[in-house]
Amino acid sequence: MNILDQKRGIRREDGKVNNNIIVFGGDGFCGWPLSLALSKDGYNVTIVDNLVRRKMDIELECNSLTPISPLSVRTKAWEEITGEKIRVEYVDVSEHYHRILTLFEELKPRAVVHYAEQRAAPYSMKSSYHKRYTVNNNTNATHNILCAIVEAGLDIHLVHLGTTGVYGYGTAGMAIPEGYLKVKIDTRLGEKELDIMYPANPGSIYHLTKTQDALAFMYYNKNDKVRITDLHQGIVWGTITDETMLDERLINRFDYDGDFGTVLNRFLMQAAVGHPVTIHGTGGQTRAFIHMKDSVNCVKIAIENPPEKGERVKIFNQTTECHNIHVLAEKICKLTDAEIRYYINPRNEDVKNDLEFTNDKFLQLGLDPVILDDGLLVEVMEIANRYKHRCDESKIICTSLWDKDKVIDLKGSDKPIE
Amino acid sequence: MNILDQKRGIRREDGKVNNNIIVFGGDGFCGWPLSLALSKDGYNVTIVDNLVRRKMDIELECNSLTPISPLSVRTKAWEEITGEKIRVEYVDVSEHYHRILTLFEELKPRAVVHYAEQRAAPYSMKSSYHKRYTVNNNTNATHNILCAIVEAGLDIHLVHLGTTGVYGYGTAGMAIPEGYLKVKIDTRLGEKELDIMYPANPGSIYHLTKTQDALAFMYYNKNDKVRITDLHQGIVWGTITDETMLDERLINRFDYDGDFGTVLNRFLMQAAVGHPVTIHGTGGQTRAFIHMKDSVNCVKIAIENPPEKGERVKIFNQTTECHNIHVLAEKICKLTDAEIRYYINPRNEDVKNDLEFTNDKFLQLGLDPVILDDGLLVEVMEIANRYKHRCDESKIICTSLWDKDKVIDLKGSDKPIE
Repeated sequence: MNILDQKRGIRREDGKVNNNIIVFGGDGFCGWPLSLALSKDGYNVTIVDNLVRRKMDIELECNSLTPISPLSVRTKAWEEITGEKIRVEYVDVSEHYHRILTLFEELKPRAVVHYAEQRAAPYSMKSSYHKRYTVNNNTNATHNILCAIVEAGLDIHLVHLGTTGVYGYGTAGMAIPEGYLKVKIDTRLGEKELDIMYPANPGSIYHLTKTQDALAFMYYNKNDKVRITDLHQGIVWGTITDETMLDERLINRFDYDGDFGTVLNRFLMQAAVGHPVTIHGTGGQTRAFIHMKDSVNCVKIAIENPPEKGERVKIFNQTTECHNIHVLAEKICKLTDAEIRYYINPRNEDVKNDLEFTNDKFLQLGLDPVILDDGLLVEVMEIANRYKHRCDESKIICTSLWDKDKVIDLKGSDKPIE
Repeated sequence: MNILDQKRGIRREDGKVNNNIIVFGGDGFCGWPLSLALSKDGYNVTIVDNLVRRKMDIELECNSLTPISPLSVRTKAWEEITGEKIRVEYVDVSEHYHRILTLFEELKPRAVVHYAEQRAAPYSMKSSYHKRYTVNNNTNATHNILCAIVEAGLDIHLVHLGTTGVYGYGTAGMAIPEGYLKVKIDTRLGEKELDIMYPANPGSIYHLTKTQDALAFMYYNKNDKVRITDLHQGIVWGTITDETMLDERLINRFDYDGDFGTVLNRFLMQAAVGHPVTIHGTGGQTRAFIHMKDSVNCVKIAIENPPEKGERVKIFNQTTECHNIHVLAEKICKLTDAEIRYYINPRNEDVKNDLEFTNDKFLQLGLDPVILDDGLLVEVMEIANRYKHRCDESKIICTSLWDKDKVIDLKGSDKPIE
């Protein structure tokens, strides 16, 4: 298979085409399908990972619903099927700074994709240990990558996965713009317009670290002219891509537990195993969503459309639609014989919110969004059905609490909980 | 000496007056004079420090101009003179989380003052090592203190020392307000007013960490109702307070080197030793200043005026005046026979800027500002004169560079450098 599209390469100073890409966290839920898609497109992919996500499964005494293969089995299977090699380097990005630097010097990657962060809000709230792990890991991982780009003296485009959650979940009567906001202020010289970063409002320690990242991006972009794209991603649903479907050894994670499971996938899997659909509070929350296939496509588009040298941090809203949680739950109950059950919300969040994001940039660059429909929902449910014997139902309820006044609700109620 | 003012104490649940205070970083330039002043006022002061600032002197092969005593000599002298004990705990606040927690549980302090951060912009820019040290130390130190307050379940008021530099050094035609800014935005429902945090614009890795701290404060205040005061302090000048003058063993640091020396103290010391007054660039920069005595007074006022439970983070501009650097240099040259010399600016910053801060809150709470006048300048110069034999002139020029295109300028020029 020779699917290298020369157009995707960029010229290095020595005249050779450079299509090296590093995916930090390339063994994870989003990182793995992306790594495969990039490899398929002809990039030379190096996965940098310390397998911490798999090790958290040990800690949480839980597992991916899907039987993910060890990383070496994954990459061997990929090579066997496609002839493409994916290199793997075991590195703790938050600690092993010098290895990041030497990898940059060796590979001179045209871009690096940064997924090497603890990515679950509930996990970040489990205890002081988890709060501290999340802050230490995420702030240092992001800073190490930025610092190494500057020390290497290379023009490496950093693509970072952020979240739509950095602004809290509320709107000020407008669709949330892509990163920046025009505001007017009163000055002695009259009204003046400023273009500011959309104000951050983190709702968990995990979200806090993403807002801290944004400041690091702003600084390194300003001081060192690092090209940075920050993707504010919605909640990912689905799990498969064309590549992960080629062979069971390439299968992607499917998290259903209270810490790492994402809401829509959890609902679908709950329906599959015959568990009530677990709504926190009233279900009045509205959230932004994106299908796994679009997540991969968006990152590919971002890689191919780097900001100009000197341009400010490019921020995309990587989300295709917003949905009310209760409406989603009802949709799934209609497709199946599942029933809704309401649990005391372990989070500090608004009982009810509106939400709307602009996502013009990806649409203009050619994204053809996968929209949530019954067919795709059934596809996810089929996967859940296939592996439901692997489910440990005791792991479904979220047991991470946002503060000491919250309680774990294992029982639930048949009525919404205000 | 019995100077305990019962009014300053607050009642614990067991009915005893609680006047315990922890000063994280209490051995440092601002921490030491504050610790003495609090002890004098009747607080039970515990200094938590890992002596890292003294150890940086070893790394930088430089020393305080003033001969500071070892910490145990300092505290013994204080007890000998005043009868008051200051307890010392050797703790790395960025690492030894559990010790912070047990100290909180033991002391139930009414307030903790957080100076345990790397505080020099040039030091934070020396190399990747220094950038990484600053990010790791400052973000983890701040987060550990916040996390321990929540885990201890105590209502501890956190007073943090920030900087006027978090907003960059420019104004939008208005005095910079105390933390928050009213802005207007256009929405579908017409113009709407928002009250946002004044947008951050960090100019060094050091400043970056202070802006990241601000987000951690916002989050812990919102989620856990922690009472937090963030002091945006100007450049401190002067070094003595009434307490540090009681005995030479109590003397405070006087940093003059290119990393830790602050601009006005450096100018005064340069005049004392016969070195040219070192202006970076043109001297068109304007900066905010505060005298050491006011720094101590402001923190005392902040401790005594905590925000209400549930009130948002209380932000003070802890600065009393703004001055243009060139004007300051000229003032010193008039007082002495010093001459100005211009050096290539090692920083990325505007050649020229206006700057103005509101500081109404401290004034309303009774601060009577120490204003820069010739008498006080001479007082600092007298200290510099007394210890000028300890100066290593090779350490005066700043050798930390903001990016790889900058050069170290040891020679300087007699003309401003645009």
